[in-house]
Amino acid sequence: MEKRGIQLEPIGIIRSPLKDPAQAPKQGSEAAVEGWLELEGAYRDGLLGLEPGRNVLILYWLDRADRNRLQVHPRGDTNRPLRGVFVTRSPHRPNPIAVETVQVLHVDGTRIRVRGLDALDGTPLLDIKVA
Amino acid sequence: MEKRGIQLEPIGIIRSPLKDPAQAPKQGSEAAVEGWLELEGAYRDGLLGLEPGRNVLILYWLDRADRNRLQVHPRGDTNRPLRGVFVTRSPHRPNPIAVETVQVLHVDGTRIRVRGLDALDGTPLLDIKVA
Repeated sequence: MEKRGIQLEPIGIIRSPLKDPAQAPKQGSEAAVEGWLELEGAYRDGLLGLEPGRNVLILYWLDRADRNRLQVHPRGDTNRPLRGVFVTRSPHRPNPIAVETVQVLHVDGTRIRVRGLDALDGTPLLDIKVA
Repeated sequence: MEKRGIQLEPIGIIRSPLKDPAQAPKQGSEAAVEGWLELEGAYRDGLLGLEPGRNVLILYWLDRADRNRLQVHPRGDTNRPLRGVFVTRSPHRPNPIAVETVQVLHVDGTRIRVRGLDALDGTPLLDIKVA
């Protein structure tokens, strides 16, 4: 198969109280952290109709991930046998895109306050969809 | 904010009976189409432990999408008021990545037979995660 590169452009950045990778909950856990999705001004029109209370799916780029790792010990537990990254939620994978549902609490122009974040502060935001 | 480009590398391709965009169901509908996820050989180790019956989340690249559109009529119905793409499931969005749950029917080396596809034939596959 022909290799094709695809270029992503972050639409904004995530502001979160989680500053340290060691603090970050495992994906799929019951996160309850609140933070902001800060979109760049150029994407403002894309938010038309967004209302508080709504659940949305967010996609973000795990910029600290190891893109070359294809197997991991589930949940970092070396007593568990290695598993392929495509059979886990590990952040380490060839295209490290996280998918998460958050609840919209407040919309202030291009800033969106949300609950239920797992993302570290400064994480590039890629997309928002209705859940 | 500083602009940062991110480069994705497809891990494979989706083989689907859906050949024509007009046939493609709207995202979120009850699709029941079967097809194949065909991974490149280099990613084989990432499938260790994948078993039939499992539900997985797949991410794929909507390569026919318009990345410059920020508002759409929901479900293409021009009688409905325009809405921001981030408040829809439209394929048209700045980073057109689809997220979908499919069921694994069969694993044959780097080819995975799945049920529940919405993707068009030839779509670049980006990721597989446990659902």
